[in-house]
Amino acid sequence: MRRFRYLAPFALMVLCVFTAASDEAPLQGFSPENSRIEREWEVKFRAIPKTENLREYMKRLSARPHHLGSPYDKDNAEWMLAKFREWGLDAKIESFDVLFPTPKERLVELIEPAKFAAKLQEPTVAADPTSNQHDEQLPTYNAYSADGDVTGPLVYVNYGVPADYEQLERLGVSVKGAIVITRYGGSWRGIKPKVAAEHGALGCLIYSDPKDDGYYEGEVFPEGAWRPKDGVQRGSVMDMPVHPGDPLTPGVGATPDAKRLALSEAKTLTKIPVLPISYGDAQPLLEAMKGAVAPEAWRGALPITYRVGPGPAKVHLKVKASWDIKKIYNVIVRIPGAVFPDEWIVRGNHHDAWVNGADDPASGMAALMEEARGLSELLKQGWTPKRTIILAGWDAEEQGLIGSTEWVETHADELRQHAVAYINSDSSGRGYLGVAGSHTLEKFINGVARDITDPETNLSAWKRNQLARIRRAGTPEDRHEARMRPDLRIGALGSGSDWTAFLDHLGIASLNIGFGGEDGGGIYHSIYDDLYWYTRFSDTDFSYGRALAQTGGTAVMRLASAELLPFDFSNFANTVSRYADEIKRMHTTQREQILERNRQIEEGVFRATLDPKEPEVLPQPEPVPPHLNFAPLDNALEALHRAAERYEKTLAKAREIGGAALARASVREVNALLMQSERKLTHNDGLPGRPWFRHMVYAPGFYTGYGVKTIPGVREAIEQKKWKEADEQIARIGKILEDEAALIDNAAKELDKAAR
Amino acid sequence: MRRFRYLAPFALMVLCVFTAASDEAPLQGFSPENSRIEREWEVKFRAIPKTENLREYMKRLSARPHHLGSPYDKDNAEWMLAKFREWGLDAKIESFDVLFPTPKERLVELIEPAKFAAKLQEPTVAADPTSNQHDEQLPTYNAYSADGDVTGPLVYVNYGVPADYEQLERLGVSVKGAIVITRYGGSWRGIKPKVAAEHGALGCLIYSDPKDDGYYEGEVFPEGAWRPKDGVQRGSVMDMPVHPGDPLTPGVGATPDAKRLALSEAKTLTKIPVLPISYGDAQPLLEAMKGAVAPEAWRGALPITYRVGPGPAKVHLKVKASWDIKKIYNVIVRIPGAVFPDEWIVRGNHHDAWVNGADDPASGMAALMEEARGLSELLKQGWTPKRTIILAGWDAEEQGLIGSTEWVETHADELRQHAVAYINSDSSGRGYLGVAGSHTLEKFINGVARDITDPETNLSAWKRNQLARIRRAGTPEDRHEARMRPDLRIGALGSGSDWTAFLDHLGIASLNIGFGGEDGGGIYHSIYDDLYWYTRFSDTDFSYGRALAQTGGTAVMRLASAELLPFDFSNFANTVSRYADEIKRMHTTQREQILERNRQIEEGVFRATLDPKEPEVLPQPEPVPPHLNFAPLDNALEALHRAAERYEKTLAKAREIGGAALARASVREVNALLMQSERKLTHNDGLPGRPWFRHMVYAPGFYTGYGVKTIPGVREAIEQKKWKEADEQIARIGKILEDEAALIDNAAKELDKAAR
Repeated sequence: MRRFRYLAPFALMVLCVFTAASDEAPLQGFSPENSRIEREWEVKFRAIPKTENLREYMKRLSARPHHLGSPYDKDNAEWMLAKFREWGLDAKIESFDVLFPTPKERLVELIEPAKFAAKLQEPTVAADPTSNQHDEQLPTYNAYSADGDVTGPLVYVNYGVPADYEQLERLGVSVKGAIVITRYGGSWRGIKPKVAAEHGALGCLIYSDPKDDGYYEGEVFPEGAWRPKDGVQRGSVMDMPVHPGDPLTPGVGATPDAKRLALSEAKTLTKIPVLPISYGDAQPLLEAMKGAVAPEAWRGALPITYRVGPGPAKVHLKVKASWDIKKIYNVIVRIPGAVFPDEWIVRGNHHDAWVNGADDPASGMAALMEEARGLSELLKQGWTPKRTIILAGWDAEEQGLIGSTEWVETHADELRQHAVAYINSDSSGRGYLGVAGSHTLEKFINGVARDITDPETNLSAWKRNQLARIRRAGTPEDRHEARMRPDLRIGALGSGSDWTAFLDHLGIASLNIGFGGEDGGGIYHSIYDDLYWYTRFSDTDFSYGRALAQTGGTAVMRLASAELLPFDFSNFANTVSRYADEIKRMHTTQREQILERNRQIEEGVFRATLDPKEPEVLPQPEPVPPHLNFAPLDNALEALHRAAERYEKTLAKAREIGGAALARASVREVNALLMQSERKLTHNDGLPGRPWFRHMVYAPGFYTGYGVKTIPGVREAIEQKKWKEADEQIARIGKILEDEAALIDNAAKELDKAAR
Repeated sequence: MRRFRYLAPFALMVLCVFTAASDEAPLQGFSPENSRIEREWEVKFRAIPKTENLREYMKRLSARPHHLGSPYDKDNAEWMLAKFREWGLDAKIESFDVLFPTPKERLVELIEPAKFAAKLQEPTVAADPTSNQHDEQLPTYNAYSADGDVTGPLVYVNYGVPADYEQLERLGVSVKGAIVITRYGGSWRGIKPKVAAEHGALGCLIYSDPKDDGYYEGEVFPEGAWRPKDGVQRGSVMDMPVHPGDPLTPGVGATPDAKRLALSEAKTLTKIPVLPISYGDAQPLLEAMKGAVAPEAWRGALPITYRVGPGPAKVHLKVKASWDIKKIYNVIVRIPGAVFPDEWIVRGNHHDAWVNGADDPASGMAALMEEARGLSELLKQGWTPKRTIILAGWDAEEQGLIGSTEWVETHADELRQHAVAYINSDSSGRGYLGVAGSHTLEKFINGVARDITDPETNLSAWKRNQLARIRRAGTPEDRHEARMRPDLRIGALGSGSDWTAFLDHLGIASLNIGFGGEDGGGIYHSIYDDLYWYTRFSDTDFSYGRALAQTGGTAVMRLASAELLPFDFSNFANTVSRYADEIKRMHTTQREQILERNRQIEEGVFRATLDPKEPEVLPQPEPVPPHLNFAPLDNALEALHRAAERYEKTLAKAREIGGAALARASVREVNALLMQSERKLTHNDGLPGRPWFRHMVYAPGFYTGYGVKTIPGVREAIEQKKWKEADEQIARIGKILEDEAALIDNAAKELDKAAR
């Protein structure tokens, strides 16, 4: 589901600066001797993945549409199961029964000032051999849209995020009783109907503007990689920032006997009907609109004057779905650990797609399969991981991360106890290694990236990323940091793929990996995301697929066999401090902006600059945000930095006296604490208004959907101007970080004992 | 010719902060008694201009096409002459004979990969009564294009400025032997064929992209104000940054007996053929191109993928003109001064147009006529200006400021001796008073703006501008300045209208005034710039035309009757210091960028971030710019600040002891020095490579055309990496400013004598 490659150049990553010495220095968490052994196994492992296998897996997986509930979805799961077993691995399928609506009726028609009926259909492209499988393709629609039959004037709302509605208000335009037309981008799609409904809209159309996803970007399919006129982005509009997974079984696994909500009780369906359309279908609708010319930033690349309405274009929108319960198939492989079998490393990628899904998700799933084959080869050669490895091919990710979420909810107690880390991938392409995730693992994944060779440059993936960061740095400070900081920073995780339940619901340290940045295109969630497209426009020779398998496998192996879990708290403390600074700056800016606007209102600035021929509603004075008490957070951050430093020093001492310390039994006590370090960042009450989300440092934004909000309780309270809640949430994150500091202090003490 | 309204919101302006006391404080340069008398006359004057007259003048002036050499151009001149005489003014026509090519053949055709012939014709619009005067309309073309018949592959060069060619080089694309297609905007149009020819192109097409000038901005004509599909921007491509005016008589008036260059010797004709085209004609050409996708900033709003080529689109371009000598008609009014008849205040606007020209120039010309009528009314009531006032309606501005330039060159000796200031206007619309000009007059024009009422808000034009600056300030510092600085800053003048010869060739302090910012549209230099358009989409009720007449007239009256000329040197010194700082920062940035790029080349950054599937040429290391000797400039600026302060203190003292001082004969000596203060900023050698441009503080950029370059000798030498020339030019401007400081010191001494 995740469009990873678009993030890649920004959420780049990763590795220690002493590259020259890298072969000699022991791996993080390893004694010198075990480090040497580990390195030997890793080198063997990385020689195994073959590009021709990746191509074959992708060809098989994407040969037919394989969405949740389709025959080929099950068929793929069974084929993967067979493959894993063929390689000698212990594999099984875990099924769940989940709500999945599919459309019975879809209609979008312009009824005034002229008649036009939207096609709502992606046509066969002659050159593309799987594009004609219309009988098996899901229609173009947004899953979990409410049923509805509505008629109203159109209002163009840009990306449909809250700030866009504030702009509309300034233009004197309301969406009450209207159907909004919004473009993809600027937020996760599910936010658009949610915010539209909050503002009183009757219905919502989401179209792909060629500026963001079409000819503006490059030549369109099939001549080029980009979205053609009639291409449509399907996708879920489930309210995932409330909770992902089956809408009828929040918080528990959707097993056959699970207690289910009635459809009417489900919290994550949209309130209004919504349909996605192509830019071919959108143009006649937008062209028929009048009203104020859209603000410059709202204008796309259609050859029209973008206007906001309302109307005179009037649209009839009808959506009716069949609300069925469907079976889903997670494929689960388990490689038992020889030394610490109760410490689990989980690695996953989904296998279901909206249609044929070569890029999304077969590019990532194929790599994971090749990792599994690689590990099975090593096992045959006598390799034994210390920890248990679980490999997962998730189903029903596209509808709302359902396969992984139901699995995590079902196994929540075990996972809380045993899970060390979760490593996710999804769509992957060509270019740069992108990593985001838990900052306790930032140093670790920097180490992995240092050992991966970039296929195009033969530099390490880390080095290529570092050089790209130097080139793209926005400020001299960023450039200096890219040159000098031992680790490249990794981004934080919001949502959009299967790490969500692991990280946000249970507090399991997570990473997401993938390649991208040189592989743009516009087939996301369309019938053209298939082998034909992928092998012409993305990682055409699968060399980056191979690099992804090498990255995922190396990370899993290293986590599985380190004596001391390679968690690091200095980078974490540094990162959380930056988030705290960001939030304070945001609050200061918010205060200053309101003070300044109030002053300008008093000076008569807005009245004086009103153009009598343009619509503009004069702003009203607003209460100035109070100062907040950031002391609990500041105090906690100091404790966190002190504890992180103590742990780092103790670790350095343990290293100095040689690896023996790491081999001692008491390291188990340290590891037990380290495993809980991410769990400590959760709170049982969850975030305000969405208790399923328990992580207090990372969450998808309530109004961004995929986009992360760090220290979300505080950040969103401030953004939403809930000052009492902000103060409460500052106290809460303060307590959480104090507890984290205490845990790290304990880990340092235990490690010190082991090192004596 | 000037598109003033587009500059207006940025080059806004102007007035003293002590508004409350404004009625009491004597006007700058006036004794209290004379200030009172002046104010009374000004109030009478400002009551005279009538919107219905402005509408009638515009209707008359724009009734038929009236370009240089057309029957209606002469007819308009004679009608204005008659009007001025009817009002009792001393008026005459001054004629010159100038080179003016008009097209005999024009052809643009796509010959590969498909056939397409460009229309090169703006169609009649039924609702627009003058759009059908095809027999009298000049065809769509660029005057002073070389004749030529060329065929070559197309290369898209964005705005066609030097930086765009650097980008192309990075993409590995050369324009040698190609025809470039470039869009209007980003520079004055004449720069485009000049830079194209410098890079080896055979020909040049300039089109209006709908992003900059068409449906992207708003509804197109006739439903809206914006440029329709077949609308074309005519315009001169004479190399005006070398010299404006008749190409055959540089530096001297184009009188019948003037010595003329042969056509082949003229320096300001283009080297290659060039034609302007509509976006309707451009789309098939751009659509047929391949090659790299254009950089994001290069993409317009046509529904295509913008690509740079070269080819495969191949174009045949043919231009052939009739190179004739035509007669032009400047209309000149003289109102003799009663006290200082040898001190002249000149006020001008052009009357010729590319076609009907309601906006450009009738909107400004009508205001100037109404000013003339107002002054004639005052004369009848007994008003006598102390100084001589000259009002001018220039011809042939559109082709290269020819009317004003030839007049200035003809009268150069007198003007050097007698001219106090030149006040220009041109197209004017609705919104904010825009002012740019000599900073010695910044304080003066702030004072005028304070007394003009904005028709929409009833605030003073100054106050509305101040509030707009507060709203639009980019930084808190800018906002603070907008609130606190007694004078609003005015922009510097580049070129684009008739001040150029006054200011840049002779060193006569100049101002340009006009209203705009609420009057967008796309009829610039097209057949649709007519009464129909103007009265629907611009200053529809002529209330801003009235405000312009009030502004111009007030400024002229006040300059004409002040005892002490209202020059001020503190704002000037402050402004020049800012320019010097800008230039130093630019030089520092240039050094840092080259150092950084060289470092990145060494680090392998560009090689590592090369996408093997995208064209990119690796940059080569570049010599690091040397440090320059800015000491002569810094020393001179200190002297200038000291002198300005001394003059200001002396003036304050003179004011304290009452107005008597200003009435004394010795003020004449001060005025004589003040009149020369702008002349002192010129150098007889002119700027490097363009001796006609003699002003050392202001000039149009050699590679911007209209856009100003301040301290141009130094700035352009640094931009063009001519380090020796940069050091020489720093010394030169240092000397110029030292001399200016000495003149100001002398003026202060003389004033001190008068005040004793």
